[in-house]
Amino acid sequence: MRKIKVGVLGATGTVGQRFVELLEKHPFFELSEVCASEKSSGKTYLEAVREKWKIKAEIPERIAALEVKDCSPKGLDCEIAFSALDSNVAGQIEENFANAGFAVSSNSKNHRMDADVPLLVPEVNHEHLEIINAQKERRNSEGFIITNPNCSTAGLVIPLKPLDDSFRLDKVHVVTMQALSGAGYPGNSAIDLIDNVYPFISGEEEKMETEPQKILGKLNGASVKNAAFKVSAQCNRVFVSDGHFECVTVELEKKPSIEEIIECFEAFNPLKNFNLPSKPEKPIIVMKEKDRPQPRLDRDKGDGMSVCVGRIKESKTMHYSFNLLSHNTLRGAAMSSILNVELLAEKGFLK
Amino acid sequence: MRKIKVGVLGATGTVGQRFVELLEKHPFFELSEVCASEKSSGKTYLEAVREKWKIKAEIPERIAALEVKDCSPKGLDCEIAFSALDSNVAGQIEENFANAGFAVSSNSKNHRMDADVPLLVPEVNHEHLEIINAQKERRNSEGFIITNPNCSTAGLVIPLKPLDDSFRLDKVHVVTMQALSGAGYPGNSAIDLIDNVYPFISGEEEKMETEPQKILGKLNGASVKNAAFKVSAQCNRVFVSDGHFECVTVELEKKPSIEEIIECFEAFNPLKNFNLPSKPEKPIIVMKEKDRPQPRLDRDKGDGMSVCVGRIKESKTMHYSFNLLSHNTLRGAAMSSILNVELLAEKGFLK
Amino acid sequence: MRKIKVGVLGATGTVGQRFVELLEKHPFFELSEVCASEKSSGKTYLEAVREKWKIKAEIPERIAALEVKDCSPKGLDCEIAFSALDSNVAGQIEENFANAGFAVSSNSKNHRMDADVPLLVPEVNHEHLEIINAQKERRNSEGFIITNPNCSTAGLVIPLKPLDDSFRLDKVHVVTMQALSGAGYPGNSAIDLIDNVYPFISGEEEKMETEPQKILGKLNGASVKNAAFKVSAQCNRVFVSDGHFECVTVELEKKPSIEEIIECFEAFNPLKNFNLPSKPEKPIIVMKEKDRPQPRLDRDKGDGMSVCVGRIKESKTMHYSFNLLSHNTLRGAAMSSILNVELLAEKGFLK
Amino acid sequence: MRKIKVGVLGATGTVGQRFVELLEKHPFFELSEVCASEKSSGKTYLEAVREKWKIKAEIPERIAALEVKDCSPKGLDCEIAFSALDSNVAGQIEENFANAGFAVSSNSKNHRMDADVPLLVPEVNHEHLEIINAQKERRNSEGFIITNPNCSTAGLVIPLKPLDDSFRLDKVHVVTMQALSGAGYPGNSAIDLIDNVYPFISGEEEKMETEPQKILGKLNGASVKNAAFKVSAQCNRVFVSDGHFECVTVELEKKPSIEEIIECFEAFNPLKNFNLPSKPEKPIIVMKEKDRPQPRLDRDKGDGMSVCVGRIKESKTMHYSFNLLSHNTLRGAAMSSILNVELLAEKGFLK
Repeated sequence: MRKIKVGVLGATGTVGQRFVELLEKHPFFELSEVCASEKSSGKTYLEAVREKWKIKAEIPERIAALEVKDCSPKGLDCEIAFSALDSNVAGQIEENFANAGFAVSSNSKNHRMDADVPLLVPEVNHEHLEIINAQKERRNSEGFIITNPNCSTAGLVIPLKPLDDSFRLDKVHVVTMQALSGAGYPGNSAIDLIDNVYPFISGEEEKMETEPQKILGKLNGASVKNAAFKVSAQCNRVFVSDGHFECVTVELEKKPSIEEIIECFEAFNPLKNFNLPSKPEKPIIVMKEKDRPQPRLDRDKGDGMSVCVGRIKESKTMHYSFNLLSHNTLRGAAMSSILNVELLAEKGFLK
Repeated sequence: MRKIKVGVLGATGTVGQRFVELLEKHPFFELSEVCASEKSSGKTYLEAVREKWKIKAEIPERIAALEVKDCSPKGLDCEIAFSALDSNVAGQIEENFANAGFAVSSNSKNHRMDADVPLLVPEVNHEHLEIINAQKERRNSEGFIITNPNCSTAGLVIPLKPLDDSFRLDKVHVVTMQALSGAGYPGNSAIDLIDNVYPFISGEEEKMETEPQKILGKLNGASVKNAAFKVSAQCNRVFVSDGHFECVTVELEKKPSIEEIIECFEAFNPLKNFNLPSKPEKPIIVMKEKDRPQPRLDRDKGDGMSVCVGRIKESKTMHYSFNLLSHNTLRGAAMSSILNVELLAEKGFLK
Repeated sequence: MRKIKVGVLGATGTVGQRFVELLEKHPFFELSEVCASEKSSGKTYLEAVREKWKIKAEIPERIAALEVKDCSPKGLDCEIAFSALDSNVAGQIEENFANAGFAVSSNSKNHRMDADVPLLVPEVNHEHLEIINAQKERRNSEGFIITNPNCSTAGLVIPLKPLDDSFRLDKVHVVTMQALSGAGYPGNSAIDLIDNVYPFISGEEEKMETEPQKILGKLNGASVKNAAFKVSAQCNRVFVSDGHFECVTVELEKKPSIEEIIECFEAFNPLKNFNLPSKPEKPIIVMKEKDRPQPRLDRDKGDGMSVCVGRIKESKTMHYSFNLLSHNTLRGAAMSSILNVELLAEKGFLK
Repeated sequence: MRKIKVGVLGATGTVGQRFVELLEKHPFFELSEVCASEKSSGKTYLEAVREKWKIKAEIPERIAALEVKDCSPKGLDCEIAFSALDSNVAGQIEENFANAGFAVSSNSKNHRMDADVPLLVPEVNHEHLEIINAQKERRNSEGFIITNPNCSTAGLVIPLKPLDDSFRLDKVHVVTMQALSGAGYPGNSAIDLIDNVYPFISGEEEKMETEPQKILGKLNGASVKNAAFKVSAQCNRVFVSDGHFECVTVELEKKPSIEEIIECFEAFNPLKNFNLPSKPEKPIIVMKEKDRPQPRLDRDKGDGMSVCVGRIKESKTMHYSFNLLSHNTLRGAAMSSILNVELLAEKGFLK
C-alpha cells in the first residue's frame, strides 16, 4: 500500500514531538512535512528541537534533516495535517488548512464544540464521523477538521460509554490527579510540585464537565445531540510524569450489580472488526488487585491506548466509584489523533 | 499553676515522637513517663529512638534521659496517658490504663466507636465529653478513654460541622491525597511513590465513611446518636510529607449561596471562649486564591491545627465542592489528642 | 536603639521575598523601601507579589501596603540597600546606589570579584571589611558595595576555613546536589526533575571553583590576596526544596587524624564575641549518625545559618571526605546578606 | 539451536523478577526452574510474586504457572543457575550448586572476591573466564561460580577500562546518586526520600573502592592480579526509580587531551566480534549536550546495557571529571549476569 503523506502543525512542541515519534514508524502514513512558528521555520527539525526534545526515543534521523515550514497550507506536500498547535493560534490555522482542502486532525480545543466538527473517540462514537459531510459543504471544500478531546476527558469517556449503553448515566463526578506532561514543557515549576499537590489546571474542569456529553451524544442527521447526564470535576496536578489518574463516581438510571459493571467493561470492544493499527487490543482493562491501576506501572498498557480501571466498589453517595488511569499524551493526545485518521481511512473518508 | 504529669504510650513511634515534641513545651503538662514495647523498655529514650527519630526538632534533652517503661499502668508517675499505640495492641492496653484510673487520650482506632467513649473534635462536639460519666460508671473507676478520629476524618469534619449546623448535610463525597507520614515510619516504599500515585490505604475509606456521623452526632443522655448523612470516600497516598489534601463534594438539605457557605465557614469558632493552648485562632481558614490551599505552603497554618479550605464552587452533581487541607500528624493525630485533654482540664473532668 | 532604615532592591523575586520576611522582624533594621522593576513599580507590594509569593509565612501586613518603587537611589528613605537583583541588571544599579552614598549588601554575582569589594562570610573573613575604605575613596562617596558568595560556595567555605587554618588546604573537590529554590521561581521545570537528576546549573561550577580562594584570601593592605588552593566542582540539581547537599573531598598540606578534623570543626566559632542577631550559635554542626545530615531534617539547624557536616572519613584518593548541608536561601543568600550588614554595624562601618 | 535450560535462584525478589522477565524471551535459554525460600516453595510462581511484582511487563504466562522449588540443586531440570539470592544466604547455596555441577552466574557479593571466581564484565575482562578451570579443579566438579559486580561498580568500570588501557589510571573518585531499585523492594522508606537526599547505602562505598581493581586486574596464570589504582567513593540514594548517576574524577599516569579521552571512549568496543544477544551496540555512549546524560531520559540506551557518559571536562584537582549513567538493574544486575553466561557459551565453557 502506498503510504499517505502527512504533516504535523506545531511539530516542535511536546505533543508535536510525540506525533513525530509515532508517525515515523506508522504503517499507513509517511511524515513529509513538519511545520511550526516563525521562530523555527527555515531551520532543520533537529536544530529546532535539539534543546527541548523531551522524549526518550531519539529524534528519527530522517525527520531530523527535514526543513521546518510555516504553518501555512501553501505548497505543502501532504494530504493530512495533524495539529498540535497551541490553542491561541490553532483556531485560525486549522480553518485555513481545512478550507484549503486538507483533512485536519486536531488535538487543540478550539473547534471541539463546533456543531459540524466531530469530537472523536473511535471506541465511543465512530459514527459521528458522518457530520463531516455537512462540514465540507459549509466550507465548500474537500477539507475538514476532526478533533480529539482534552487529555483528561479522553480516558474518562471510555468506561462511561458501556455504562451509559447498559445502565444510562445520570451523574458523573471525577477528581483528577494529572501528570506533568499534560502541561507541555516547561509546564509546571518543580517548586510547585515538591512535597505538594498543585490544585489548579486552567480550563480543565470546564472541559471535563462539557466534552463528555458531546462525545456520548447521539448522531442526529447532520449533527450530534448532546447527552443529558451531568459531570462535575475537580482537577489537580501531581508529581507524575505521564498518566492521568482519576477517581470517578457514577449514578445510573438503574443500579446494576458490581458483576454487571465489570462485565460491561470487559465486554466493551466496539472496534474489534476495524483495521486500525493504533487501537488497543482491549480499550478497557479491569484490574482486580486492591492497589491497581497505578500510573507508573500501568500507563503503558495497550501501548498507552488502554484505559485501566480498578477499585470498583459501591458508593455511599452515588451508585459506584472506581479509579481509572489513561496515558495523557498517547490516549489523551497524539496517538488518539492518529487513531482518528486511521478511522477516516478505514471508513473511506480519505480520497 | 502546677503542671499535670502525663505519660505517652507508644512513645518511640512516629506519633509518639510528636507527642514527646509537643508535650515537652506544653504549658499545662509535664511529660514524666515514656512507655513502649519490650524492645525499648529499660533503655533511655535516646537509645530507644536514636535510629528512628524523624522529627526536625532535636529530641528534648530532658526526655532523652528518661527510662522507657513498659506499657503497664503499675507504678507510673502520671495521671494522664496519651496513647500512640499501634492498633493491634492499643485496645487492651488502653482498657488497662482506664480501669486503673488513668485518663487515656487515644489516637488509636480501637475504642473510637465504643458507645460511651467520646470521638472528640473539640470544635465540633465538645459536649460529647459528658458521656465519659457513663464510662466511668461502667468501669467502676475514675479512669476513662477519650479518642480522636482518624487523620483524614479529623480535617474533614471541621468544615462539615458549620455546613450541617446551617444547611443540614445530606451527602458527602471525598477523594483524598494523603501524606506519607500518615502511615508511620517506614510506611510506604519509595518505589511505590516514585512517578506514581498509590491508590490504596488499608481501612481508611471505611473509617472516613463512618466516623463523621458519630462526631457530628447529637448528645442523647448518656450516649451519642449518630448523624444520618452519608459519606463516601476514595483514599490515595501521594508523595507529600505532611498534610492531607481532600477534594470534597457535599449535598445539603437546602442549597445555600456560595457567599453563605463562605460566611458559615468564616464565622465558625465555637471554642473562642475556651482557654486551650493548642486550639488554632481560626479552625477554618478560607483561601481565595485559585490555587490554594497547597500542602507544602499551607499545612502549618494555625500551627498545624487550622483546616484550610479553598476552591469552593458549585458542583454539577451535588451542591458544592471544595478542597481542604489539614495537617495529619498535628490536627490529625498528636496535637488533637492534646487539645482533647486541654478540654478535659478546662471543663473540669480532671481531678 | 533607633532602627536603621533599609530597602530591598529586587524585592518581588524569590530572594527578595526572603529579605522582606527576614527584615520585617529584625531587631536592628526597619524595612522602609521595596524596589523592583518597572512592571511592579507603582503597585502596592501585595499587588506585585500576590501571584508569586512562595514563602510559607504570610506577607507581612505593613509591607504589603508599601508602594513598590523603581530601583533608583533618588528620593529613597533608607541608608542601606539589600540587593536581590538579577545579575543581568544588578551590576549598574548597585553601582548607582553605592555612588549615591548607600551601603549596598548584594546577593548578586556582578561585583563579587572586584578588587575593593569584600566577598564576605563573617565567620571566615570579617577582617576583609577593611577594603571598603579603598572602595569609598575610589567612588569618592560614603557609599560602597559588599557581597556574599554564591549559594553553594557559602556553605562550602565555612568548614574549609578551620581546615585551612589548622592544616593548610591544598585541593578541594566538591560534587553538589542542589535544591530547587536556588534557581528562583519558576526555575526548573518539574519535568526535568521527575524520576531524575538534572546535571547542569549554568555558571555554578565556575563560581565554586574561584570564589573560595578570595573568601579565604589574606587581607593585604587595601586588597585581598587570594588563597592558592585548587577547587574542582561538579554541580547538579535534585528534587529538594531547600538545602544544598555537597560531597566534599580535601587534600591538606599535612594529613591530620580524623579526631583533629572533628575537633577543628567543633572548635570553630570566630564570631562568638560579636553581637550579630543572624549568626548561628554554632557555625558548624558535626553530626555523627551514619546517615546525617539530610536536607529535609537538617537544613533549618541554627535557623538555617549553621552548616551541618557528616560522614567524615578518610579518602583513598585525597585525605578526607565529608558531606555538608547548608540552607541555600538563608546561609546561601538573604540571611547572609543581612548578617553582613549586622557586621558592618557592629564594626562601626555604618554612620 | 536447542535452548539451554536455566533456573533462577531467588526468583521472587526484585532482581529475580528481572531475570524472569529477561530470560523468558532469551534466544539461547529456556527458563525451566524458579527457586526461592521456603515461604514460596510449593506455590506457583504467580502466587508467590503476585503482591510484589514491580515490573511493568506482565508476569510471563508460562512462568506464572511454574511451581516454585527450594534453592537446592537436587532434582532440578537445568544446567545453569542464575543467582539473585540475598547475600545472607547466597554464599552457601551457590557453593552447593557449583559443587553439584551447575554453572552459577551470581549477582550476589559473597564470592566476588574469591581468588578463582571471575568478577566479570565482558567488555572489560572476558579473558578472566580462564580462572574457572582452577575453580573446577578445586571443587572437583564441572560446576563453578561466576559473578558480576555491584550495581554501582558495573557502570563505573566500563569507561575506566579504555582510560586505563590508553593512559593508565592512577586515582578515581566517584560520588554516586543511586536509584531506588538498587535497594530491592520495599527498600527505602518514601519518608527518607521526600524533599531529601539519603546519604548512606550500607557497604556500597567499600564495594566500589575494591571491586574495580579486580575487574581491571591482569590475568596471571590461574588467578587475577589486581590493578593498583586507588578508588574513593561517596554513595547516596536519590529519588530516581532506575539508573545510577555517578560524578567521576580521574587522575591518569599521563594527562591526555579531552579529544583523546572522547576518542578512547567512542572507540571502545571489545565485544564487537562476539555473538552475545545482551551486549549493547556501543558499551559507551558519549553525550555532548551540556545537560546529559539524565537518568529518566538515558537509562534505557542500548536496552539498559550502554553506559552514557557526559560533561567530560578538565578538573582542577585531578585530570578529568565526567558524569556517567548506567541502568542498575540491567547493566548493574540481571542482564549482566545473563551476558556473562552468553559469554560462557560463546567461549565454549558450557558443555
